[in-house]
Amino acid sequence: MDILVTLNENYMPQLRVMLASLAINCPGERADIWLLHRAISPEGVRSLNEFCLARGMRLHEVRANEDLFSGAPSTKQYPPEMYFRLLAGQLLPQSLERVLYLDPDILIINSLKPLWETGLRGSMFGACAHTGKTELANSVSYVRLGSEKYYNSGVLLMDLALMRREIAPEELFRYAEEHRRELILPDQDMLNAMFSGRILDLPDIIWNYDARNYSTYFLRTSGEADTDWVMRNTAILHFCGRAKPWKSMYRHRFGVLYKHYMRIAER
Amino acid sequence: MDILVTLNENYMPQLRVMLASLAINCPGERADIWLLHRAISPEGVRSLNEFCLARGMRLHEVRANEDLFSGAPSTKQYPPEMYFRLLAGQLLPQSLERVLYLDPDILIINSLKPLWETGLRGSMFGACAHTGKTELANSVSYVRLGSEKYYNSGVLLMDLALMRREIAPEELFRYAEEHRRELILPDQDMLNAMFSGRILDLPDIIWNYDARNYSTYFLRTSGEADTDWVMRNTAILHFCGRAKPWKSMYRHRFGVLYKHYMRIAER
Repeated sequence: MDILVTLNENYMPQLRVMLASLAINCPGERADIWLLHRAISPEGVRSLNEFCLARGMRLHEVRANEDLFSGAPSTKQYPPEMYFRLLAGQLLPQSLERVLYLDPDILIINSLKPLWETGLRGSMFGACAHTGKTELANSVSYVRLGSEKYYNSGVLLMDLALMRREIAPEELFRYAEEHRRELILPDQDMLNAMFSGRILDLPDIIWNYDARNYSTYFLRTSGEADTDWVMRNTAILHFCGRAKPWKSMYRHRFGVLYKHYMRIAER
Repeated sequence: MDILVTLNENYMPQLRVMLASLAINCPGERADIWLLHRAISPEGVRSLNEFCLARGMRLHEVRANEDLFSGAPSTKQYPPEMYFRLLAGQLLPQSLERVLYLDPDILIINSLKPLWETGLRGSMFGACAHTGKTELANSVSYVRLGSEKYYNSGVLLMDLALMRREIAPEELFRYAEEHRRELILPDQDMLNAMFSGRILDLPDIIWNYDARNYSTYFLRTSGEADTDWVMRNTAILHFCGRAKPWKSMYRHRFGVLYKHYMRIAER
């Protein structure tokens, strides 16, 4: 399994928690972690490398080639990092044909193998739209961006070979320039506005479970998706939104699990 | 670390969950598991042995010598198993000098090493009295049994050498015979009635946290023992009482963690 992460140094503690949960819950899977970044310190990378080795994972550092972004509109709101996901084809080694991008604010609680082995059947991405409470916000977004569904970009299975052929950096930069007033979450919005037709729709309840929305999943499945079901079937819990489980006042159901993995990641 | 478990076949699934949590949360500790029993099938033992080996632990089967119990009053309410803990000195190999007994309905969430290394300073046992909601029941019990505190027998650090010297099987049997009307939980009651003066008192919030009593621990510590604190400091969550986290309607806070480990134990 090749896992892609792109983040800045502030999210290194969360990345460790995510990787610790990956190591425990995908036993027997070889995991290669691709760290694509611009500004993480050599000490930060070295320490993460040790962390990965101790858990049987291999870390590969890829420092983004700044030249690629010379044509990008760059402001504080639009840092080069916002293009890392969509330009992963160009930024990662040519030999890689597929990668699974994961946000750092997630917990892996069951095997990722079935996701990793999902055939994309000509789509460039596999992704999930969050159902539930966020649907109103999603409707606004798909009217706003003209896409049919609003996909969350926190879990993205990528066909890198297709992306290399079909995504042109200058088109991304042009889009960003032309829509700079409308983009709220620039990278996620661009994924939806420019590529929603190239996304294979995957079930969020399995691969990108919005950890705030237990009751909605529960009701939508007529009570099937209770805690037992989630612990047995869901593979990725995504702690999206403003309330974060690494803070002390987090009140949602899966906080206790996150905090336990924080402790495991410290060892 | 030498861990003692005594159970019947019905509790094998819970034992696996407990051992899976032990393997993850005491990394780098060699664990020898002593399974003391009377009636577990050879197939059950073989399968548990594989489970342990896959997690880096060694299983040792000890079939209880029935002769030892020939003088015991035996009824349905008083099966020979009730003496296994108190007679562990006689039942386990002479070469073992110390063992940590653990109930199967617990989850290990932090290292047991500090408990394992606790000096008993002449006490025969290290044990915890449950504080909190159960205190009323405890007061009744210590009036009933004449002991000062009512210790829970689910986590017991044992000095086997002392136990061999000081616990006489026939005295246990005589006590059971004479008090057969009063004993509610015969083994736990006998531990308290006969040996409370020989127990080193350990903090339950660390080593035998009653998983039903989050609010009481929280209030008693003036809010210090919140979820973060428990995940960081508590080593043993004990799911005692009638509500069990492996059942679907369990409503307490740590159920989600238990259910996650149930899944880990199945792999």
